[in-house]
Amino acid sequence: MPSDAPYWEAHSVDPAALTDSDKQSYKKLSSFAAKGVAVVTAVQGRWDQATVVTDYLSVSYDPPTMLVSLYSLSRMAEAFVESGRWGVSLLASNQRNVAEALGEQASPLPRLLDRIPHFRTGEGTPALIVGSLCWFDLRTTHVTVAATHTLFVGEVTAMGRSAEFGALPLTRFQSGYLRSK
Amino acid sequence: MPSDAPYWEAHSVDPAALTDSDKQSYKKLSSFAAKGVAVVTAVQGRWDQATVVTDYLSVSYDPPTMLVSLYSLSRMAEAFVESGRWGVSLLASNQRNVAEALGEQASPLPRLLDRIPHFRTGEGTPALIVGSLCWFDLRTTHVTVAATHTLFVGEVTAMGRSAEFGALPLTRFQSGYLRSK
Repeated sequence: MPSDAPYWEAHSVDPAALTDSDKQSYKKLSSFAAKGVAVVTAVQGRWDQATVVTDYLSVSYDPPTMLVSLYSLSRMAEAFVESGRWGVSLLASNQRNVAEALGEQASPLPRLLDRIPHFRTGEGTPALIVGSLCWFDLRTTHVTVAATHTLFVGEVTAMGRSAEFGALPLTRFQSGYLRSK
Repeated sequence: MPSDAPYWEAHSVDPAALTDSDKQSYKKLSSFAAKGVAVVTAVQGRWDQATVVTDYLSVSYDPPTMLVSLYSLSRMAEAFVESGRWGVSLLASNQRNVAEALGEQASPLPRLLDRIPHFRTGEGTPALIVGSLCWFDLRTTHVTVAATHTLFVGEVTAMGRSAEFGALPLTRFQSGYLRSK
């Protein structure tokens, strides 16, 4: 590669012969995607399951449709499959403690939400986080498996705000949070 | 709703009887999701197609897999289908001019990239943006339609950096950009 190349750490990948170095490079590079931090929730039997995610997106306005990507073998994915209903709460920048309490990528544990202020829009619907920038109740409409993850697509059945006006988002970037002003 | 409710602007949605007000509320609420801005590209016949997106995510490390959501009737979605190969370049905070030149949600036009420094990892592969935080070449592995959009899932065939170390992301939030430090 010439020294004036407009890129570096360029790395070819052969998906049929993946190396650990490929996976490490991808982890590092994909961490440059800034992402608002969200809590996803579902009721599984008697328990609330909750975990922190950044892999979600808005798919459509018509009808309001969102997607969340969950590791297929996670307890959260199991709760989504069992319940078919889930909540998404986008955290504000002053809710870093919520993200840390729920522990990114950790297995969600029953009663974890006991210590985190939450509410519901109805009996038996998913918990939603008090103080979140916005929140959505959803019902699964499509499920697709892609590599190690399952993509849950759902339509919005209720939505609202909880944070004060002017609140900023809690945003992941690289291995930390983006400082916003 | 009691005045001490921990939420406001709460809004129920009946997906079977959607109103314009539902769509407007969802647009406003979903804009609270902070998202790094990316340029997606594909070669369509003799032309580069390019557009600005925030609806993408990393699906898996094993193999490195990403997803981009495109409006099904867009020229970009057509280019993705025809080519089966696409590029994702995550913009740095000093590339707001690139995002504005490509025009969010506008139809991509041939030769639009002429004015934007770009490179390729090989002959006929998608254009990638010089100065981007990171870039990925992908090949489509799954296509799923969800409401008005098509979800393109692809595996990474090459990846790298282009921005200087320490560069910050260009991040959408509400109707503008998040100011980071």
